[in-house]
Amino acid sequence: MALLLHDYFRSSASYRVRIALNLKGLPYRQQAHHLVKGEHRAPDYLGINPQGFVPALADGDVLITQSVAIIEYLEEAYPDTPRVLPATPVERARVRSLAAVVAADTHPLNNLRILKYLQTELGLDEAARTAWYHRWLKECFDALEARLTAEPDTGRFCHGDDPTLADICLVPQIFNARRFAFDLSPYPTVMRIFDAAQALDAFVRAEPDRQPDAE
Amino acid sequence: MALLLHDYFRSSASYRVRIALNLKGLPYRQQAHHLVKGEHRAPDYLGINPQGFVPALADGDVLITQSVAIIEYLEEAYPDTPRVLPATPVERARVRSLAAVVAADTHPLNNLRILKYLQTELGLDEAARTAWYHRWLKECFDALEARLTAEPDTGRFCHGDDPTLADICLVPQIFNARRFAFDLSPYPTVMRIFDAAQALDAFVRAEPDRQPDAE
Repeated sequence: MALLLHDYFRSSASYRVRIALNLKGLPYRQQAHHLVKGEHRAPDYLGINPQGFVPALADGDVLITQSVAIIEYLEEAYPDTPRVLPATPVERARVRSLAAVVAADTHPLNNLRILKYLQTELGLDEAARTAWYHRWLKECFDALEARLTAEPDTGRFCHGDDPTLADICLVPQIFNARRFAFDLSPYPTVMRIFDAAQALDAFVRAEPDRQPDAE
Repeated sequence: MALLLHDYFRSSASYRVRIALNLKGLPYRQQAHHLVKGEHRAPDYLGINPQGFVPALADGDVLITQSVAIIEYLEEAYPDTPRVLPATPVERARVRSLAAVVAADTHPLNNLRILKYLQTELGLDEAARTAWYHRWLKECFDALEARLTAEPDTGRFCHGDDPTLADICLVPQIFNARRFAFDLSPYPTVMRIFDAAQALDAFVRAEPDRQPDAE
């Protein structure tokens, strides 16, 4: 087995994949592409991944892109590793749906290319960019707190007592929220689950500041 | 079986689910929630789906939200219906990754709540909103055209010769592009696949203008 993760320490989509690899106990090498310096737009990387995004996971000769697709792939290609999706279709749907609140409804609005567009194309100042960022964080955490508090399948983690894809998406989003000084105190259930995740080495080792390319 | 789809004719995430249900031959009822009139924010619907988004699929007593999670659920819960994901982990990853170029990287930037924010909070005029919309469409179709042209698994459809989740996400995005007068002529491979999909009744019947709530 030779897994190579193309990543960037501060990319929260990369962070998700690092957590999943750690939870599954799958060893991997890392190759960093500095997004702020534009290294993901270098011709050699575009030859690997034409979209120029991280993460991308090379598994031998195969390249998989898109963080959630990578994690679903790991779940299917390495079935003897700890699962990050539950067993039944209804439970799996709940986990995928919670994950999508972050991965589809929130993170795409707040990533680097969007913040750059707001600054350079729309000329928004820092206060207006922060208002944008916080608006979508608020919608995200309002939705997650409501669901996680109301739905009976919530346990120690987002779904039951073991970490799943939902927690894998949640934790990096909380790191983003803190970096942008977003107030998380209205979200006690979310933060209880965050604390449970941060008690696990698999989550801690995946943190941005612990990566080889961290600044 | 009693499937009830909470949808809106113009919601492209709802449109994805309609295509999947049609491809699988699963009968369903529809309950429309008029997004522009704010009906998705009515208390009775928030009681069903606290996030207030469409689509949501009720399967008996269970409610599933998030379009891709719903389609993955249908794939797992109704295994005797036509598949919209291929068989092997590598192939499934490719389809999910192509789908995510639309469902994660593009559509969340261009949906109604974002266009409203651009207009009311940022005060952008129509030209600036269109420039925003077209920017992310261009990144989306540039990426898809490059991949679909280069990757050997592309067939009559995005992956092989049968429709998959990737086509289910692609077709509504092309309807959006046309509605916003985006030039699709630089994307011959994408449009060849679009034409193949539009030859199928399952795609045609799911079109926005053919829904009971169409205006």
